[in-house]
Amino acid sequence: MAVYTDITEAELAAFLGGYDLGGLLSYKGIAEGTENSNFVLHTGAGPFILTLYEKRVERSDLPFFLGLMEHLAKRGVSCPLPVRRRNGEMTGDLAGRPAAIITFLEGMWPRRPTPAHCRAVGEALARLHVAGADFPLARPNALSLPGWRTLWDGCLARADEVEPGLGAEVAADFSVLEAGWPRGLPAGVIHADLFPDNVFFLGDRLSGLIDFYFACNDFFAYDLATCLNAWCFERDHAFNLTKGTALLAGYQSVRPLAPAEAEVLPLLARGSALRFMLTRLYDWLHGPDGALVMKRDPMEYVRKLRFHRAVASASEYGLARP
Amino acid sequence: MAVYTDITEAELAAFLGGYDLGGLLSYKGIAEGTENSNFVLHTGAGPFILTLYEKRVERSDLPFFLGLMEHLAKRGVSCPLPVRRRNGEMTGDLAGRPAAIITFLEGMWPRRPTPAHCRAVGEALARLHVAGADFPLARPNALSLPGWRTLWDGCLARADEVEPGLGAEVAADFSVLEAGWPRGLPAGVIHADLFPDNVFFLGDRLSGLIDFYFACNDFFAYDLATCLNAWCFERDHAFNLTKGTALLAGYQSVRPLAPAEAEVLPLLARGSALRFMLTRLYDWLHGPDGALVMKRDPMEYVRKLRFHRAVASASEYGLARP
Repeated sequence: MAVYTDITEAELAAFLGGYDLGGLLSYKGIAEGTENSNFVLHTGAGPFILTLYEKRVERSDLPFFLGLMEHLAKRGVSCPLPVRRRNGEMTGDLAGRPAAIITFLEGMWPRRPTPAHCRAVGEALARLHVAGADFPLARPNALSLPGWRTLWDGCLARADEVEPGLGAEVAADFSVLEAGWPRGLPAGVIHADLFPDNVFFLGDRLSGLIDFYFACNDFFAYDLATCLNAWCFERDHAFNLTKGTALLAGYQSVRPLAPAEAEVLPLLARGSALRFMLTRLYDWLHGPDGALVMKRDPMEYVRKLRFHRAVASASEYGLARP
Repeated sequence: MAVYTDITEAELAAFLGGYDLGGLLSYKGIAEGTENSNFVLHTGAGPFILTLYEKRVERSDLPFFLGLMEHLAKRGVSCPLPVRRRNGEMTGDLAGRPAAIITFLEGMWPRRPTPAHCRAVGEALARLHVAGADFPLARPNALSLPGWRTLWDGCLARADEVEPGLGAEVAADFSVLEAGWPRGLPAGVIHADLFPDNVFFLGDRLSGLIDFYFACNDFFAYDLATCLNAWCFERDHAFNLTKGTALLAGYQSVRPLAPAEAEVLPLLARGSALRFMLTRLYDWLHGPDGALVMKRDPMEYVRKLRFHRAVASASEYGLARP
């Protein structure tokens, strides 16, 4: 949950004066997202989401994130549409922070994803990859191998506090991933954080994707690997082959994987599991006590890492042979 | 901020099946209230607030709280209206807790109250007192003198951790208040927690009162004294006579105080300051570290206690002579 910055009604009314959205009716801080402060905002024009970007988001990245949402929405990918100010800008200043208003998307994120949800997410991810092809901006993935190494440097000395032996175990992953990380796979704009809480459904119908604040340019198949990690494991940490099969089939119904992508899917899934393990581990070891943010257990992703190490081919995730 | 219980969309859809509110469109946990879990809920019928009552609210008190809101709303006091289920009930069960849906009230609580806000709150409080006169249920104030004594018994031994000498200082307040607490003042249903975050405004116009979960039967003038504490002190802890004058004039424009009420207002304000100091002190000393609830500083109310001890007559709060 996240409301890091409270704002006064006078500040917000002044900010809203830069938009054609009618008068301010109400705003309530919501417990969604972990990086920014988010509010449900009601104006004369209806409900919106107001986001204040906190320190973990670089101001210079906002044109990429918000521009991408606008680009995708215009190409039929259901996602929030940033509302432009009268001066044409997509952000303004509020309480000393950059802030944006985006459209309110109805739908609920699935607390207990089903294979039908997984299939729909796979399809939506592929549509996002296709629709992003002509997006003119680019943003390197700050959380790829060099970024992981930086996080790891800040955790290594204390990793064994989480589980004895974890330091050596993860060092071995780094050796394998740094030696074998692929080059030249199909790449473009990826979401990079398409977890269940970022995908809304109305019943089994996917109603939209949210939270593009990790979006960047990287391999499409890496994004798909992240979805395997985020959607296809059960609470007991077992991989659910039915869900994996559904996710991959959904993806391939829109954008079939090239053989080179299928080949390295286990390595990409291992890298993706390492990436989420590392950010959780870093927050676990360095996060302030008593913060208003729930710390997430890095061990969940250590278990996924262990699973992927033993995977020999993408068919074990449910990938159908072409 | 408060979202203690997350709920699945399946649980919520089933719960909503007991209402005539159309289908479930979205729900988002909000950072408002400190006792319960609250969600902005969108259904086919519009926006609502969904509340799950947590352990600090007694299930047997809900008919009083929700019935009061319905009673007041029907008499023109702007407050949320509980939505009745098809079976006529105002609550149902959700995630193992009693839960209710109430109408969504537009408006913002004033982060920086002005004298105009204070006047409007005084008026609204008096209207609430008048409109509650024929409410058929009653609920004793669990946080009056005996309740304060119970809280104090749980804090006394450690009170000096907050400030040296605080234990003896507060013991003296108890002697004075227990010896002199009035009897027989005009009484009825009071809000008992009408702080700025429970009063919504659209501009200077009061749009509604919320959060009736401390409402009970007690002296009307005690409720007014609580508003003096909640609305008329500045951040530097100084009493603002202009705001006090406005609050009291607003109140008296609807319900003039009897001489006996005016006479004891300083004692009631001292008691009210003690009550809020004690709940804060208790939470400060006993609250879990790292909880998702901000602990509020009891010293703010110690300073108000000290102010009221030195007040000789209600004219020092700005009460106009009748």
